Amino acid sequence: MELKIKFLKWSAGLPVVMLNQKTADKLGVHPKEKVLIKTISKKPKKMFAITDIVKKLVQSNEIGVSSEIKKSMDLIPRQRIKVNLASSTKSLEYIKKKMQKKELSEKEIGKIIEDIIANFLSEAEIALFVSSMYRNGTSMKETVYLIKAILKTGSKLTLKNKFIVDKHSIGGSAGRTTPIVVSICAAAGLIVPKTSSRAITSPAGTADAIETMAKVDFTMAQLKKIIQKTNACLVWGGGLGMVPADSKIIKIEKQLKIDPDAQLLASIMAKKLAVGSKYIIIHIPYGKTAKVSKVKALKLKKKFDFLGRYFHKKLKCVLIRNKGPLGRGIGPVLEMMDVVRVLERKGSCHLLEKRSLELAGELFELTGKAKKGKGIEMAKEILDSKKALKKFKQILKAQKGRVRKLKPGKFKRDFFSPKAGKIMEIDNKRINALAQRAGCPTDKSAGIYLYRQVGNHIKRHEKIFTLYAESKSRINEAVKFYKKNNPIILK
Amino acid sequence: MELKIKFLKWSAGLPVVMLNQKTADKLGVHPKEKVLIKTISKKPKKMFAITDIVKKLVQSNEIGVSSEIKKSMDLIPRQRIKVNLASSTKSLEYIKKKMQKKELSEKEIGKIIEDIIANFLSEAEIALFVSSMYRNGTSMKETVYLIKAILKTGSKLTLKNKFIVDKHSIGGSAGRTTPIVVSICAAAGLIVPKTSSRAITSPAGTADAIETMAKVDFTMAQLKKIIQKTNACLVWGGGLGMVPADSKIIKIEKQLKIDPDAQLLASIMAKKLAVGSKYIIIHIPYGKTAKVSKVKALKLKKKFDFLGRYFHKKLKCVLIRNKGPLGRGIGPVLEMMDVVRVLERKGSCHLLEKRSLELAGELFELTGKAKKGKGIEMAKEILDSKKALKKFKQILKAQKGRVRKLKPGKFKRDFFSPKAGKIMEIDNKRINALAQRAGCPTDKSAGIYLYRQVGNHIKRHEKIFTLYAESKSRINEAVKFYKKNNPIILK
Repeated sequence: MELKIKFLKWSAGLPVVMLNQKTADKLGVHPKEKVLIKTISKKPKKMFAITDIVKKLVQSNEIGVSSEIKKSMDLIPRQRIKVNLASSTKSLEYIKKKMQKKELSEKEIGKIIEDIIANFLSEAEIALFVSSMYRNGTSMKETVYLIKAILKTGSKLTLKNKFIVDKHSIGGSAGRTTPIVVSICAAAGLIVPKTSSRAITSPAGTADAIETMAKVDFTMAQLKKIIQKTNACLVWGGGLGMVPADSKIIKIEKQLKIDPDAQLLASIMAKKLAVGSKYIIIHIPYGKTAKVSKVKALKLKKKFDFLGRYFHKKLKCVLIRNKGPLGRGIGPVLEMMDVVRVLERKGSCHLLEKRSLELAGELFELTGKAKKGKGIEMAKEILDSKKALKKFKQILKAQKGRVRKLKPGKFKRDFFSPKAGKIMEIDNKRINALAQRAGCPTDKSAGIYLYRQVGNHIKRHEKIFTLYAESKSRINEAVKFYKKNNPIILK
Repeated sequence: MELKIKFLKWSAGLPVVMLNQKTADKLGVHPKEKVLIKTISKKPKKMFAITDIVKKLVQSNEIGVSSEIKKSMDLIPRQRIKVNLASSTKSLEYIKKKMQKKELSEKEIGKIIEDIIANFLSEAEIALFVSSMYRNGTSMKETVYLIKAILKTGSKLTLKNKFIVDKHSIGGSAGRTTPIVVSICAAAGLIVPKTSSRAITSPAGTADAIETMAKVDFTMAQLKKIIQKTNACLVWGGGLGMVPADSKIIKIEKQLKIDPDAQLLASIMAKKLAVGSKYIIIHIPYGKTAKVSKVKALKLKKKFDFLGRYFHKKLKCVLIRNKGPLGRGIGPVLEMMDVVRVLERKGSCHLLEKRSLELAGELFELTGKAKKGKGIEMAKEILDSKKALKKFKQILKAQKGRVRKLKPGKFKRDFFSPKAGKIMEIDNKRINALAQRAGCPTDKSAGIYLYRQVGNHIKRHEKIFTLYAESKSRINEAVKFYKKNNPIILK
């Protein structure tokens, strides 16, 4: 059936269409069922959408579409599109197979990923897939299939250079090493096409942080220009359409606050492969309150090593013990302020600086730019000479931004230590959750500034951190959470 | 914050509110996050809703609410309500505990159920709960907690009578024994406050079928009157608010097409307890294409027996081997036509009749109305005397309906056997899926009419069944499915 597009000015967060009751009856579609919409052209764009049925809002010759559909199908008002009842799919069966601990074939994983991209699977169904992978684990074979499926459904960046490098932290503790490492490496002539995600389970992703000073959402063509100009980029991967399946899965992982191994591995590897990286450093912080334990970190290392060999990449995992946030800030704006402090050589973020130098050093050694054991030295020279700062400014400029003075949220509350002692650890999970209660990552200027770090001694009633938010209700939410979950562990 | 209600004429299928961007900023709420809405009164009604953020559709002093919220909170236009950022909850943590195969406490299960009812958990989160129960199993302790939690959050029916009985089939094969069993038992003076569900994974639930001839959605007070008048009822349980948590969970199970044991047990037992049944027959059909295998049926029986003892009920499980649909019809209208045929003594549905007599007979023996081994005889007498038909008519009348001539869907397609042979089995899963492709259960007159049943011999090219639908596209969908999934197994 052909219908005329009508835009509905609301963002449902989901691809939703509205049909008039009469149209729905004719199509035989029920509320909440899926329809297939298709543009009328030689190379039609296709998409599945969930149907809402209304009596008045749209006429019987119209179809109302939510802004998500308008954007992803690039539609114009009154345009005519084809609408049909969606045929059934096998992917729910495959997901259930995984649920029953059976191994999926390349074809089956491919179909699931394809259906996720085409919106054929509902959030509840994707949740089932994510939780099955999480609960039942996945073989390395399945992980490889997942990577290939994610890659196949996306687009690739093609750069001609021997020294395309990448660095990735699996996350879990606050602090942005990425902008520092990228700036140091690019200043030394390495090519660093760094695409980052927004926060999944953390208060800030690198893309969230960079966005406080520059644009992060570019097309593939724009991206190439930025890299040609600066050797590097610091962009949001989601907007490039390189790994669209990954973005959809991550949305559900955010809701469920889980991140299965296979998806973590696939998500990282697919991104590295899509940008054509040849040398890859994977930073795996481990510890009691880090994302993974030491045992888990070693297991992940083994899997990454396998994938590196499988895809013919020079890949090295760097396992480092973690006892808390790397910088003083937690949250997009506050973490970005730390990055600038380090690049401007203004001190006070020793751990963030140390870690960044270690990771840049590893890349220098992996590529052979520095001799074994001399990588950190080389990185420090570049940082001290402010060549990294210069490079960072160049990248931001290419991304339509600049280093500017940032301000944390206008609502704030100071927190004081109830007793004296030495800070043994800052619980990553709690401090991250606290920053999230304050509004991170959506509220970019929300977050936490730590006056003291792990290893410091503090007095009774000493100010230990300030919490920032963009609204009073968020401050109250955070205070309520803090009372039950103090993240500062003293001895 | 206080805001004025504005109704949005759309059914989102979810409790959704729309806030103006300014209001959202003030509250500190992000798109897709939850707010707590509360009426202003001495006994405020509370509900969590998902937030959509718009620029124009609602003003900054307004809150747009979807029809689900309007209905469940009983709101009027321009009414003022309180809106606040929703506090965090522990239930997602508890769900993850279950995911990790740990046993949940009474308090934890109670909290999950409470949050499901208050809309605090998203569909993806409920999916995680359902799949964790499905995958990891649940102890009898947890099942009891689940039953108690579902009961606690609903309302109860209180009838004073010694002989309150109930019959339940776990489902899996088409054919409505319930209306026949209820009519026979009520005609014999038993009290049968039968509440049924709509279809979960099948083409028709008893409520879907009864609705083709009478109303099924009543208040508790109306229900009592119906039972006082007729000894029985045949209503939809979901509308009574007896087990609201169950209804929400079932909605997700429908999407995922899974039904975990604990939820199946809890769903059935909570309903029986809520209506105060003292004698309960649980019909468990088993077989190759039934819902459960014989082994699984025996396991379920053990669990039901435990729950019967735990809650001090006279409960008996009746395990019967199943090889296909009981009647000739599949789908609400077509199954209801079978029911009427049996009650009117018009033959042609031998298996449906036989099964109904067996189940009614078991209830007569369980209550002591008939001597051991004489139940079926007593049931047959009542059916043959047309007392059951009279009772059925009385119940329908009390439910504002009557026995009327029904018509299957106006679009139809005949199917012929490709070869001669004996029908060994009719695959329940395939024939149910076929009826669903045709539009069941939403399209009540869609479905299948079988000219031949299990055990019959058929000739080559003989007409074997007719498929009915309410739209042409549904017929096409079904034909497509049939080509790959012929449900008729010949020898």
